[in-house]
Amino acid sequence: MATIEKYRAVTLEKGTVSVREHPFPKLQIDFDGHRKPLPHGVILKILLSNVCGSDMHMYRGRTDAGPGLILGHENTGEVFMKGADVETLEIGDWVSVPFNVACGRCENCIERKTHICLSVNTKWPGGAFGYADMGPWPGGQAEYLLVPYADFNLLKFPKNVPKDKLLDIAFLSDIFPTAYDGAVKAGVTTGLSVYIAGAGPVGICCVAACKLLGASYIFCGDFESARLENAARAGAIPINLEKEKLHDKIKSVLGKAEVDCGVDCVGFESCGHHGNKRRTDEERSEVLNTIISVTKFGGGVGIPGLYLPADPGAATEVGKKGMFVLSFGDAWNKSLYMQGGQCPVMKWNRLLLDAILSGRTKVAEYLNVQLIGLDEAPKAYKEFNEGAPKKFIIDPHGVLRTPGTK
Amino acid sequence: MATIEKYRAVTLEKGTVSVREHPFPKLQIDFDGHRKPLPHGVILKILLSNVCGSDMHMYRGRTDAGPGLILGHENTGEVFMKGADVETLEIGDWVSVPFNVACGRCENCIERKTHICLSVNTKWPGGAFGYADMGPWPGGQAEYLLVPYADFNLLKFPKNVPKDKLLDIAFLSDIFPTAYDGAVKAGVTTGLSVYIAGAGPVGICCVAACKLLGASYIFCGDFESARLENAARAGAIPINLEKEKLHDKIKSVLGKAEVDCGVDCVGFESCGHHGNKRRTDEERSEVLNTIISVTKFGGGVGIPGLYLPADPGAATEVGKKGMFVLSFGDAWNKSLYMQGGQCPVMKWNRLLLDAILSGRTKVAEYLNVQLIGLDEAPKAYKEFNEGAPKKFIIDPHGVLRTPGTK
Amino acid sequence: MATIEKYRAVTLEKGTVSVREHPFPKLQIDFDGHRKPLPHGVILKILLSNVCGSDMHMYRGRTDAGPGLILGHENTGEVFMKGADVETLEIGDWVSVPFNVACGRCENCIERKTHICLSVNTKWPGGAFGYADMGPWPGGQAEYLLVPYADFNLLKFPKNVPKDKLLDIAFLSDIFPTAYDGAVKAGVTTGLSVYIAGAGPVGICCVAACKLLGASYIFCGDFESARLENAARAGAIPINLEKEKLHDKIKSVLGKAEVDCGVDCVGFESCGHHGNKRRTDEERSEVLNTIISVTKFGGGVGIPGLYLPADPGAATEVGKKGMFVLSFGDAWNKSLYMQGGQCPVMKWNRLLLDAILSGRTKVAEYLNVQLIGLDEAPKAYKEFNEGAPKKFIIDPHGVLRTPGTK
Amino acid sequence: MATIEKYRAVTLEKGTVSVREHPFPKLQIDFDGHRKPLPHGVILKILLSNVCGSDMHMYRGRTDAGPGLILGHENTGEVFMKGADVETLEIGDWVSVPFNVACGRCENCIERKTHICLSVNTKWPGGAFGYADMGPWPGGQAEYLLVPYADFNLLKFPKNVPKDKLLDIAFLSDIFPTAYDGAVKAGVTTGLSVYIAGAGPVGICCVAACKLLGASYIFCGDFESARLENAARAGAIPINLEKEKLHDKIKSVLGKAEVDCGVDCVGFESCGHHGNKRRTDEERSEVLNTIISVTKFGGGVGIPGLYLPADPGAATEVGKKGMFVLSFGDAWNKSLYMQGGQCPVMKWNRLLLDAILSGRTKVAEYLNVQLIGLDEAPKAYKEFNEGAPKKFIIDPHGVLRTPGTK
Repeated sequence: MATIEKYRAVTLEKGTVSVREHPFPKLQIDFDGHRKPLPHGVILKILLSNVCGSDMHMYRGRTDAGPGLILGHENTGEVFMKGADVETLEIGDWVSVPFNVACGRCENCIERKTHICLSVNTKWPGGAFGYADMGPWPGGQAEYLLVPYADFNLLKFPKNVPKDKLLDIAFLSDIFPTAYDGAVKAGVTTGLSVYIAGAGPVGICCVAACKLLGASYIFCGDFESARLENAARAGAIPINLEKEKLHDKIKSVLGKAEVDCGVDCVGFESCGHHGNKRRTDEERSEVLNTIISVTKFGGGVGIPGLYLPADPGAATEVGKKGMFVLSFGDAWNKSLYMQGGQCPVMKWNRLLLDAILSGRTKVAEYLNVQLIGLDEAPKAYKEFNEGAPKKFIIDPHGVLRTPGTK
Repeated sequence: MATIEKYRAVTLEKGTVSVREHPFPKLQIDFDGHRKPLPHGVILKILLSNVCGSDMHMYRGRTDAGPGLILGHENTGEVFMKGADVETLEIGDWVSVPFNVACGRCENCIERKTHICLSVNTKWPGGAFGYADMGPWPGGQAEYLLVPYADFNLLKFPKNVPKDKLLDIAFLSDIFPTAYDGAVKAGVTTGLSVYIAGAGPVGICCVAACKLLGASYIFCGDFESARLENAARAGAIPINLEKEKLHDKIKSVLGKAEVDCGVDCVGFESCGHHGNKRRTDEERSEVLNTIISVTKFGGGVGIPGLYLPADPGAATEVGKKGMFVLSFGDAWNKSLYMQGGQCPVMKWNRLLLDAILSGRTKVAEYLNVQLIGLDEAPKAYKEFNEGAPKKFIIDPHGVLRTPGTK
Repeated sequence: MATIEKYRAVTLEKGTVSVREHPFPKLQIDFDGHRKPLPHGVILKILLSNVCGSDMHMYRGRTDAGPGLILGHENTGEVFMKGADVETLEIGDWVSVPFNVACGRCENCIERKTHICLSVNTKWPGGAFGYADMGPWPGGQAEYLLVPYADFNLLKFPKNVPKDKLLDIAFLSDIFPTAYDGAVKAGVTTGLSVYIAGAGPVGICCVAACKLLGASYIFCGDFESARLENAARAGAIPINLEKEKLHDKIKSVLGKAEVDCGVDCVGFESCGHHGNKRRTDEERSEVLNTIISVTKFGGGVGIPGLYLPADPGAATEVGKKGMFVLSFGDAWNKSLYMQGGQCPVMKWNRLLLDAILSGRTKVAEYLNVQLIGLDEAPKAYKEFNEGAPKKFIIDPHGVLRTPGTK
Repeated sequence: MATIEKYRAVTLEKGTVSVREHPFPKLQIDFDGHRKPLPHGVILKILLSNVCGSDMHMYRGRTDAGPGLILGHENTGEVFMKGADVETLEIGDWVSVPFNVACGRCENCIERKTHICLSVNTKWPGGAFGYADMGPWPGGQAEYLLVPYADFNLLKFPKNVPKDKLLDIAFLSDIFPTAYDGAVKAGVTTGLSVYIAGAGPVGICCVAACKLLGASYIFCGDFESARLENAARAGAIPINLEKEKLHDKIKSVLGKAEVDCGVDCVGFESCGHHGNKRRTDEERSEVLNTIISVTKFGGGVGIPGLYLPADPGAATEVGKKGMFVLSFGDAWNKSLYMQGGQCPVMKWNRLLLDAILSGRTKVAEYLNVQLIGLDEAPKAYKEFNEGAPKKFIIDPHGVLRTPGTK
């Protein structure tokens, strides 16, 4: 093939997002002070790359993202070029790319903890594409993407799946497994009731996950009625926290004011009643404390929403240190089990792929997907940050946008 | 209330089923040679009592059922009378009765192994209502039923549930939890493919269970097209083993000839191609060996179908001893995990009740339920034994049969 | 037997502990405003009743214990009298009494969650003997004890076990299962390293539990060298937090400063460096935050130490509400799994009994047990509260104290 | 380094074992009809390579081993040469080599099922070094060994560990994890009783594993008193099946004739009472049926002993097909859970390494290890086949045999 010298990518610089040219990637990376060859890597041509709520954390300056960061960790692509030690993938294969970068060779990867891979990030365990503090890996809101350890990381799926299923598959790179993982951590199973905090994209995926897991009553709370409509279409009982009292609403359905399981699909930047204004310590912890209060004795709490060990943009000293004022005495007394953390996407994406391909589940149609080109990304960031109840997906090569394709 | 002296019940005597009068039960039982008081027991007025495939084992003389056995282990009832140590139930409560009799006080019950309770059967661990070798407990195909350890055993549900849901609830006493348990033992979860052997009532319930558990492709094999139609309506891909090759059919759908999980919903009396004639050792083991062959390396096999430690009616010496000629070398080489055994109904019935009440699942409409009065039971036994693709449910007091009720 | 009218018991009144006479118990209790018969109950003659660290919470006024509370939730006894619905126990049987009072009939007990039984406490799920807010059940630091639901609750063990094993068995009522449960919740298993915060009795039992579970390196940190000596004798690597830096000490042994699992055997009343003086919010949360910092990415944290939903004696507003300032952002980023809560003793006591009887484990000899008579209890409370590195066990009838007995 | 052209290896040819020269390995393999490069591979200098009971299956002609097979799947080595895509290993590192060859990139490896890797064997899932039907991988009873996917497969351990620990570490390649896996599959945990069938090397390792897992009473049965002495030294209660009745012996210790868990450490070539003569179908199944009979209702059965899907050397038609006449009706009635299959060594070897290094466990001293040179291997095969109660370990470079080394 002819050599490509440049490619275009959504780039974050000092709080501004723009589309810039970058040198075409090679099968190598600058890592820990030296240039590391990646014979196990591939270059993907990006099919779809979603804009994610956690991109907004960087956009808003709530992380210490370095200069010139190429964004995009929710990627779907086609194998374009491969290294000498790639055995299972062929040029042209379509693949879903877990947002976690993982080596498949360290102790944690071997134990399926690909979210805390020991080899791909010098700061702490765990890497990601296009993300602050998560290693040197450029993101995929771009024409191309370098993926190391490709045999291990990539999930192959059939070419030419119908357009609607391709959109569902696009969510396998992050938020569908993330939401499913949160539901599993909360102990959701056949017949149980669930409260999902947040009707954003992760919350909607969580509704679908809870249905797959057999939950009976799935409540979803939010302050935005447009988002709640999405949740309701996905199968949830919506609760408008602006207008309804959470415990009362649950009691009116279940006859008791507590659910079996709670899932926090919001995270540390919850704004709740308080908008984006600078919040007190108790306001910052409100989502978690609400979930603790609404989950029954012996119930489970999953926390896929992102919390960070430092939050330089927080309004309080406690907040800056990544600390939260939690009603832990209550949680302990109720014997709740609680777990958060990044999702190890590879634990769930193959199962969810089969659930999608067999028609057992779907999510895209509840998410108000809007396909855009690369150049529309800066505008989409702005809209999403302002709360548009949409999921923007960048289709840099026009695979789905071109009339007549699939 | 006025004293009742007699009640009518379906009674098995020398291979013949008839409706006979018996003395009205007291809160006591003859156990291990002495009369044991049951202050923890209740007398139920039977709402519904299903005829079960495993009743046929006794009907056909494949067990050593004693004389005058009152049949019926799939019971749903209304609390009619209660003992001094019944705390949580009130007269008039509607309850589902797990087929296992369990004390709630022995080591096994405490560990949730109510299927092998140590206190209710002198022959071996595990008791059941109306069943050979399973203790002294009369069955519920009758006007009334004595249930010991009632607080522990009985699952209360709302009165006046709609008729269709009451029929679904009727399957919580045995075959829905049994089928669900088999699917769980087989490792069924989100996205996996399953082969269910047998499209009888347990097989149909297993299709519903696999859907609740999120399975992708659910195959169900049988030799009877009428039964397979039920399975298809429940959501399965039917395989007519008379006409289709099992592995080929699976391959045509999945692209490979093996499934992730196999469930044996048939048991030791499988007749398969061979009808009811006397079978060789390999024919007797055919269902299990087929499942071993069709389940992938590393897959799981659940065996809710009944196997017994002795089968006096078998045609071979090996068979009489409850032994089977299994391709265990293959199972070992494939690292299959296999588990059978009675279902501990209490492990699942509450979860499934909530799944039914919330509308997440249903089974009755796929089972061709036929409601009958007590006096029609002998005829129903004959028809069911001859293979009628129906589920007969006895409604001794006309709760659902009377026009105008619920 | 001759009627007994009175019995003597350790009684808490306005922060003072004394031995008083009370009317001999009957098989009934005042519950939820009415007198409830307990045909399933027994009266035990107390063999041994331990003084527990959590008794100190009440002694110090950190709970809202009612007037005239008979203390004692770590009880071992002999069946002295039994109700009409007790089937498995005989007069004279020796039994270990789980500190949790549980009915064995509610949804939670059926699911083995006896620590949050729904029937024995009107305030919230979960009951205990002799404990504030945990139901109307008198404690066992007394000559006799009423135990409801005796068949379900009591663990029978052989009479005439040797004296040293009887002392080990005395810890099956609470702290050995509690510590084991904490280790299990922390994910301790073969080959893993553990940090146990606190070398009090629960911490020492946790060392024994971690050995049973196959842990490799078991660190135990405390500020008191006398307590640390106990831990070292039990098999731990002691860390004197007054003199050594926790992370450095761990690193000197493991070559890295983090352990696989952390267990908080201290709870909300940790005093640490700060003694008993009134503490800031960060000091109150120090044990948990230290464990979060010392547990590796992907590790587990078990929290058997007690935390309460309200702490009227706390020095801060946050503290009074049972809230804690936790480095939750760090815990999330590390994907820690964390669980606290009361231990469901019945889940582990039988296994641990067999481990004791077979000689696989022991704890009493590391705990500096001091046997005392009832009348010495007030003095023991005082000493224990002042930090004596002993475990006081009341032997009200002189079973072990009398020369020549066992 | 100077080029090495030849190396010496234990080679099986037509039932005879001899030491032959072979061309020095390259980082490639003939696989599925083509030459496949292995940039992820290493060449190890063998430190220790054990002779295994399952080598005897091939030695005795019970498998279809091809001509010129280099034996040896229990290997420990030093990295001597490495491919371009080896990132975590350095020349000189000491490593334990799991007997399973696994790619770390296929669906099964990702799910930790390295025993049934999909990429390393064309016959069926799962590969091994030096083993019939397990792929093209030469064994390590040799001076050198080629290991593919080295970063993934190899477990690094400290150089210069003391000699006795090095011998323990030598068992991490197969039989210690295999035995531990069998115990885990049988459900062994704190306080449970276990019956281990077979006091050969796997049985002895299983005794050590059960101790690590906290079992109370560990029975081990065999027909050879010399082997039983090893088991007793390891901590088992020995049962000489030639002289003692199994159930009676168990009853004399436990007070009941059944154990909680059974582990079959024998496999399909059990000779039992019957010596090596040609056996009937029931004799071939005797070990499994005995375990079924001696395991309690609700207990677990682990089957690390090898069973194969075909046994050309069997005396009966049923046997040749890899079928067994099992008392499955009894197993079902008892609700036993049973699992066999190759052990995924990587699931346990790191945990067991830490247990060895910390001094928590050891096995070599109970196994009568005899270190030999390569040239002594043929004699050792003969002795081991005749039942010598020893474990032969080949030390081809004299690492442990040379006086003065480590």
